[in-house]
Amino acid sequence: MTMSKPNWQALINEKRAFRESQIPLEWRLDEMITSQAHRDNPISAFDLLDQTDILTQHERDMTENYDATALLAQLACGAISSLEVTEAFCKRAAIAHQLFNPLTEIFFDKALNRAKQLDAFLAREGKPMGPFHGLPISLKDTWMVKGEAATLGFVAYLTKPVAEENSPIVDILLDGGAVLYCKTNVPQGLFTLEGENNVFGLTMNPHKLTLGTGGSSSGEGALVGFRGSPLGLGTDIGGSIRVPSHVSGCYGFKPTANRIPFAGQQFHFRKGWPGMLPSAGPHANSARDLMFFCRTIISKEGWKRDSASLAIPWKDVRKKKLKIGFWQGAHETPVFPPVLRALRKAAEVLEAAGHEIVPVSTPEGAGTSQCLNIYVHSLGFDTKATLMKFLDDAEEEILPGMKDFRNLMADIPKSTLDDVWKFYADRADFRTAWHTKFTDADIDVLLCPCHQGTGMPHSGYGLPIYAMIWNLLDCPASVVPFLRSNKNVDSEKIEGFDTDAVDGAPTHVQVVGWSFRDEEVLMATEVISDALEKFSVTNL
Amino acid sequence: MTMSKPNWQALINEKRAFRESQIPLEWRLDEMITSQAHRDNPISAFDLLDQTDILTQHERDMTENYDATALLAQLACGAISSLEVTEAFCKRAAIAHQLFNPLTEIFFDKALNRAKQLDAFLAREGKPMGPFHGLPISLKDTWMVKGEAATLGFVAYLTKPVAEENSPIVDILLDGGAVLYCKTNVPQGLFTLEGENNVFGLTMNPHKLTLGTGGSSSGEGALVGFRGSPLGLGTDIGGSIRVPSHVSGCYGFKPTANRIPFAGQQFHFRKGWPGMLPSAGPHANSARDLMFFCRTIISKEGWKRDSASLAIPWKDVRKKKLKIGFWQGAHETPVFPPVLRALRKAAEVLEAAGHEIVPVSTPEGAGTSQCLNIYVHSLGFDTKATLMKFLDDAEEEILPGMKDFRNLMADIPKSTLDDVWKFYADRADFRTAWHTKFTDADIDVLLCPCHQGTGMPHSGYGLPIYAMIWNLLDCPASVVPFLRSNKNVDSEKIEGFDTDAVDGAPTHVQVVGWSFRDEEVLMATEVISDALEKFSVTNL
Repeated sequence: MTMSKPNWQALINEKRAFRESQIPLEWRLDEMITSQAHRDNPISAFDLLDQTDILTQHERDMTENYDATALLAQLACGAISSLEVTEAFCKRAAIAHQLFNPLTEIFFDKALNRAKQLDAFLAREGKPMGPFHGLPISLKDTWMVKGEAATLGFVAYLTKPVAEENSPIVDILLDGGAVLYCKTNVPQGLFTLEGENNVFGLTMNPHKLTLGTGGSSSGEGALVGFRGSPLGLGTDIGGSIRVPSHVSGCYGFKPTANRIPFAGQQFHFRKGWPGMLPSAGPHANSARDLMFFCRTIISKEGWKRDSASLAIPWKDVRKKKLKIGFWQGAHETPVFPPVLRALRKAAEVLEAAGHEIVPVSTPEGAGTSQCLNIYVHSLGFDTKATLMKFLDDAEEEILPGMKDFRNLMADIPKSTLDDVWKFYADRADFRTAWHTKFTDADIDVLLCPCHQGTGMPHSGYGLPIYAMIWNLLDCPASVVPFLRSNKNVDSEKIEGFDTDAVDGAPTHVQVVGWSFRDEEVLMATEVISDALEKFSVTNL
Repeated sequence: MTMSKPNWQALINEKRAFRESQIPLEWRLDEMITSQAHRDNPISAFDLLDQTDILTQHERDMTENYDATALLAQLACGAISSLEVTEAFCKRAAIAHQLFNPLTEIFFDKALNRAKQLDAFLAREGKPMGPFHGLPISLKDTWMVKGEAATLGFVAYLTKPVAEENSPIVDILLDGGAVLYCKTNVPQGLFTLEGENNVFGLTMNPHKLTLGTGGSSSGEGALVGFRGSPLGLGTDIGGSIRVPSHVSGCYGFKPTANRIPFAGQQFHFRKGWPGMLPSAGPHANSARDLMFFCRTIISKEGWKRDSASLAIPWKDVRKKKLKIGFWQGAHETPVFPPVLRALRKAAEVLEAAGHEIVPVSTPEGAGTSQCLNIYVHSLGFDTKATLMKFLDDAEEEILPGMKDFRNLMADIPKSTLDDVWKFYADRADFRTAWHTKFTDADIDVLLCPCHQGTGMPHSGYGLPIYAMIWNLLDCPASVVPFLRSNKNVDSEKIEGFDTDAVDGAPTHVQVVGWSFRDEEVLMATEVISDALEKFSVTNL
């Protein structure tokens, strides 16, 4: 089954050539621009975009000044056509791709055809096809779209046939009138925090190309953050939606596991893991888009298509004044100045807006080290190291993130059956400790960091412990972009923090609720986002 | 830690003497009656009850002709007092105990005092204390009630101190105005199907003392089936609510795991089992009581008291004409004539009542043998055999059920970590197979047997595979009593079936819905029960 290195390089070259061929010539950027787009240039892709006029003013307006909800309102009444919206996002995604490499599969042609059909449907029927009518939606590479590949950046997967069926959620999107146009990049092995693999290369951060995009929904976060997509579908088992969202300055939401259908993705991990529960969820450019996506998908009763999906109907909850727990992180994992500043400013703004802020301390025995300890042990359950096998099968070069992952795994003793018991017992204790914090303070949501820092220089993100906690507890959690790193203000010296390197990177807050309270977290995310946006607009 | 046999016999004698002392002298049955109450006499406890007039006509009326819902309506408006209802059920439970031994802890005094307080509350406040106002509720021995023991029939637990705190659900019941008055018997080790242990002895079937009560909520099923309790709280990890309910002719419901708070029970299994999910749920004398109990408990938001309890609010669903899947069982585990007759008659009655009956065949590779295979392997994960340790610690005599269990375990190879992966993978496949059956037929619920047979001669119940399937799938399932075994009709010869032995035993149907559709299953159980009761009354 192993293939020699020369062979894999040829396969990669072929795949990349195919990918580039999917970008129409008229959307190709001038070499003067693309020559600036590389990992060592601390430039913003937004600034590079300003150097081209491939996008018309109307296309810039549609992609920059509307969220998905606003676009859908226009699409549903025919005020704008699906074709013009789709073309705008295809073009912007094409530009994004040439600037920071977020895409894996590109199928703009199919998308434009589909958009025409949807426009014809609206004209003919006098009503939209469904709640996603005419809207382009991007997908993490793991999702299956009939006729498209899903290689996950594994060289060994390059020879797999294209998908014969859609993932159940992809069917729901299509039934609802969505337009699919591209799939997006992931880290090698999907368990690391840098959007790079041997097949598709490195995805860079649109806000500063020297920074990483996090993982594992790396390309989704970057594409949506650049507004090359109005709505993206990712997955999150340890921060994989929230990390790429916060580093690229967009919104992201990890629901309670299996509230959004997760089934039917490309296989990349041994079947039957008795460890963490993964979630599917959205990347977006507004809090209300997160809400819209989840409400719409859940209302489509995915549990009839996916045997693991939970038959829990959507529940509408009203906006209200919130009681917000405020956790500034654990001493053992200090939060870096820009994120801490954003977090404190957010608490201040929210309090001024009439919400109650309740300080919450780290529960005893349930801080970041214990989270990491429990989480990492569950990764060790795969004594067959399936993940590494995909790489070894193709004699792939192991990239830095995956080397770190392998070293982390090498440090833990070989797992036994007793370790699974210990994992379940430790997780239950961890859960009780945090449950007590939530119930004693009687909070609606917890405001906290999603990471120590912002997006970090390539391969330097570190472990996403502040995201992983909520996977370990299966709690719904969103990230909201708020403010940016500023080297003139964020000057405190902390190990691992380089204020110059991250200057200008988006900062964020994380909003967390107890398990199954997805609707409440989404409502709170909207309420919090409204207050923070009002502050940001006033203080531009 | 081990104690010698003479010592444990003394401890048992002391415990039994204490238990008997809790039954007031004036409620003791004549020796002429009690001498008939033994495991070799195929008599009904209902017939023995007719030989005494300890219960007044009013007490017989209250205990026999009202379900919990009807009693609560009378209690809430003061038409009957909590004291009279409580005294009636204490008396009836005392009689039950002398006839078939269902009780472990008896605290009638406290109950009568509590009832007086509740009557005073209603008189003073002009309103009931809560939804359970004044109603006696019985509890499986595993539940913790402050000041009461929870020995689970383990000799090693006889020296444990009494409970210092209530289980969270016990607090919910008490906050709601319930009256607690007794706890009930369980099988040795709780993983077998015969309500017998060395501490409390054997619980017999009220309908025929030669038959067993199933397990593990053995005493609950028997007590509620005899109407010695209007509502009981049990737990179910492999049929433990449904089996004792159907063998003793009452209703029982196993919810989706953790919809009813499960926390705070007496410890009896190693912490951190990566296997089956247990459920807490009600035993009752009507389908509407199952609905009432679940709706009320879930509305009290147990997730604020129990970190594992799911924050999924109660959802009202309306009664409707049902689409009912009809599964008559798997060829490899033939259903005995009386149960098959009840099942077929039920389908006939339901169809005549206007419901749609859709035959459902056993899904390929997901029948009873495969269920048993997957389930039993998960029991083998405890390589430390914690359950046996409690017995060994006290050098307890191992009873037949536990011997069978030990033999079953001895047959499977020693588990490793890979077996846990296999369990999760196999369970997912099993789930997909059944999911396809449910979705292809587009059914509201599945009508099927809960067991091959009815209650069986002592130690002869067999493996409760038709109940276990729905634990393996975490599907909500209820049992509804319907008809009885009749040796004149159920004459077909099948291995393991003795028509004379079970003549007169209650038969049943099981009603199952997909995971998390608890409300729909409870609604369907009411609808089905209404139709079956109407038939039973007409055909008396």
